[in-house]
Amino acid sequence: MSLLNHPSTSISSSSSAFLGRDHRRLKTRPHNVLLPAKRSWICKCVATPPAEVTAYKTKVSRNANMAKLEAGYLFPEIARRRAAHMLKYPDAQVISLGIGDTTEPIPDVITSAMSKRSDALSTIEGYSGYGAEQGEKLLRATIASTYYANLGIEEGDIFVSDGAKSDISRLQVLFGSEVTMAVQDPSYPAYVDSSVIMGQTGQYQKDVGYGNIEYMKCTPENGFFPDLSTVPRTDVIFFCSPNNPTGSAATRDQLTQLVQFAKDNGSIIVYDSAYAMYMSDDNPKSIFQIPGAKEVAIETSSFSKYAGFTGVRLGWTVVPKELQFSDGFPVAKDFNRIVCTCFNGASNIAQAGGLACLSPEGIKAMHDVIGFYKENTEIIVKTFNSLGFNVYGGKNAPYVWVHFPGQSSWDVFAEILENTHVVTTPGSGFGPGGEGFVRVSAFGHRANVLEACRRFKELYK
Amino acid sequence: MSLLNHPSTSISSSSSAFLGRDHRRLKTRPHNVLLPAKRSWICKCVATPPAEVTAYKTKVSRNANMAKLEAGYLFPEIARRRAAHMLKYPDAQVISLGIGDTTEPIPDVITSAMSKRSDALSTIEGYSGYGAEQGEKLLRATIASTYYANLGIEEGDIFVSDGAKSDISRLQVLFGSEVTMAVQDPSYPAYVDSSVIMGQTGQYQKDVGYGNIEYMKCTPENGFFPDLSTVPRTDVIFFCSPNNPTGSAATRDQLTQLVQFAKDNGSIIVYDSAYAMYMSDDNPKSIFQIPGAKEVAIETSSFSKYAGFTGVRLGWTVVPKELQFSDGFPVAKDFNRIVCTCFNGASNIAQAGGLACLSPEGIKAMHDVIGFYKENTEIIVKTFNSLGFNVYGGKNAPYVWVHFPGQSSWDVFAEILENTHVVTTPGSGFGPGGEGFVRVSAFGHRANVLEACRRFKELYK
Repeated sequence: MSLLNHPSTSISSSSSAFLGRDHRRLKTRPHNVLLPAKRSWICKCVATPPAEVTAYKTKVSRNANMAKLEAGYLFPEIARRRAAHMLKYPDAQVISLGIGDTTEPIPDVITSAMSKRSDALSTIEGYSGYGAEQGEKLLRATIASTYYANLGIEEGDIFVSDGAKSDISRLQVLFGSEVTMAVQDPSYPAYVDSSVIMGQTGQYQKDVGYGNIEYMKCTPENGFFPDLSTVPRTDVIFFCSPNNPTGSAATRDQLTQLVQFAKDNGSIIVYDSAYAMYMSDDNPKSIFQIPGAKEVAIETSSFSKYAGFTGVRLGWTVVPKELQFSDGFPVAKDFNRIVCTCFNGASNIAQAGGLACLSPEGIKAMHDVIGFYKENTEIIVKTFNSLGFNVYGGKNAPYVWVHFPGQSSWDVFAEILENTHVVTTPGSGFGPGGEGFVRVSAFGHRANVLEACRRFKELYK
Repeated sequence: MSLLNHPSTSISSSSSAFLGRDHRRLKTRPHNVLLPAKRSWICKCVATPPAEVTAYKTKVSRNANMAKLEAGYLFPEIARRRAAHMLKYPDAQVISLGIGDTTEPIPDVITSAMSKRSDALSTIEGYSGYGAEQGEKLLRATIASTYYANLGIEEGDIFVSDGAKSDISRLQVLFGSEVTMAVQDPSYPAYVDSSVIMGQTGQYQKDVGYGNIEYMKCTPENGFFPDLSTVPRTDVIFFCSPNNPTGSAATRDQLTQLVQFAKDNGSIIVYDSAYAMYMSDDNPKSIFQIPGAKEVAIETSSFSKYAGFTGVRLGWTVVPKELQFSDGFPVAKDFNRIVCTCFNGASNIAQAGGLACLSPEGIKAMHDVIGFYKENTEIIVKTFNSLGFNVYGGKNAPYVWVHFPGQSSWDVFAEILENTHVVTTPGSGFGPGGEGFVRVSAFGHRANVLEACRRFKELYK
């Protein structure tokens, strides 16, 4: 039986008229969920209070910014849908190419450093308590010399953390509620969601996004680099390259434009380079390769996708000493205060792992793992190309951005899940500009990637 | 030569007149440091911008809340002073009874679980990537059954984190800038500092504290429990028991009063129980032992002081499903959203350690380490008692709160450091109500504690 003829396919495709109606109703119910509740298992995230809740209410008002947030954070929402799908099809072999979670074991040279550090913690000589909130000196210095050699970035500019996502939120706390911000559209949802939480935005409007955020459209037409001549000034510009979700990487010329744009406007760029080691093209791997960037940019990055540290948790943020607020106060000094007050340093065991990552053997091992995922990417790109889709990304990032013109991303997501048991990520989850796309992640065991591609071919042949 | 006659002692004691003048000047220089810069090595934390800073400034305004913060966060400030002291006296054997950092090795049963988990991460079967942001299900369930058995707290109410300090700041982000808050005075500085950062407070005023915060005085006179009849209503009440820094623990009767007070006012208590396992008296170890507390309280705790995890980083926060904002929205749902958006879960290796902590052997091992520190506490208490000081705390917490009536805490801190090379913590660093006290931490190797006490006896005999 062709997967296309699976009964539920017709449910998916015939539901678009219903969706249209439901979308109109949503406008009058702003606190409702982002997505139409087509099936009972969808959208548990913003449910009504559970039945067992007591009658007593405090007199503390709910933070109005929290109420602005649409639906659940994207990836837990996908995890919930995946779980619901598995309940519905308990025997299905579900494959996740969705949330961008690494699957390959961490190289020995790295895990053995972590287990050694763990063991040492039970000895008097090897025990250590609180470390510096900013990270261990040697790790900070090694990150600086490995990723920012000859760029004028020094140990003191590096803040080691439990990951880029946490750092993004700490940066938002640093900036406060009065700043304005711009994001690439589509983009990693933590930028926008943390901005909403901090009160930087207005209300959400369907197909438009949150008020007071500049969505810089990144489309196939502009090569996924925004037309900066049409972007109004904002205080902060979030920019991710190689990009999640589109997989595209900005060229040196484009990044030079971006830095000049920030400089002209007095803006601060928060540059997310978490995928820099996936770059095949000869583009800059750090914003600080662009002259003058240290005066206008912060860079955040992570070991998550380099060493499979998504569960181990280790990242870093570079705040150059040259970066200043309008009154001349160094941004790094305020970020240091945030880190000291709101954080207590990354796990010392994870930091030992980070140091091992940056040894010669560790760097080679990371490149091997990255190379493996890049082969996965090629397989996925070829599959969708062969099916006649327009496919973007993939070359410089572990994400493939597949175009389904005129279709709802969540419909396509549901169609793929229902028919192939493969979890992807709906493009519209990354912002209004992602509508009509689906992100396919290359993180997966080879056999699963091959099997997923076989099923894609079955569905879309 | 008696330590009392050391030349610099007279500098310390004669400096009070100078301090008085300097304090008055501070009022006209609100962005200056909290402490008089008696010596050049003091107060590097709010220095003028470094010389190498470039001329370019962005047009992004500095977050006005950050500018409100006085001086550096307390503990990094103490670390800086300790470092400066070591520069001045390179041959001194400096002993730290200051920042409350654990010193004893982590029991084998716990570290071996962490090294096993590290090693497993390099195998296909043992690898795991992103975990649930809220923590691993088994760990959440085990925390619930270990610390909250029969209290109606379930796995889903537990949010595992990288430590209580991070959670406090996430809770502040949850509450937002519009809430009012109360703290015990003195209290752990992260409560107030994170409140300032989130914009909940007014400006700082010397000897008074920040505007718009209710400082609930906890003194020997009221048995370190605030007179609630004089405390105005606030949205949030931070309460720590056993208390850091005073070492006192609230009784069941006092906590019942506190819960009733919150209920009458519709307030939310954030209850910090990070030292509960140090309790000798028969007081409640959790706020949820008080009937009705689940409707008005959040509890945050940590493995830091139980298992020596200050560097490993693992804690948890309990947000009961019964706790509601004034509109009936469950607080846990918003906290879940914060955790999912601003955090990516605690390190999986640390979580393996947490689970081992809660095994029967792990619990016994934690009690052994805690027992060791409690012996240290007794030694310190006896020492100061024998010297005629009024001493508080110690019995239910690893902190001894020593009274130096009429003296400046920072002066006493400096006097002790200068004359004994022992680092303590000045009481006023915990709020205006801590003035005239010094906190002595019982975290230390036995030999160091004994030697520090010998030096105290020399100085104060």
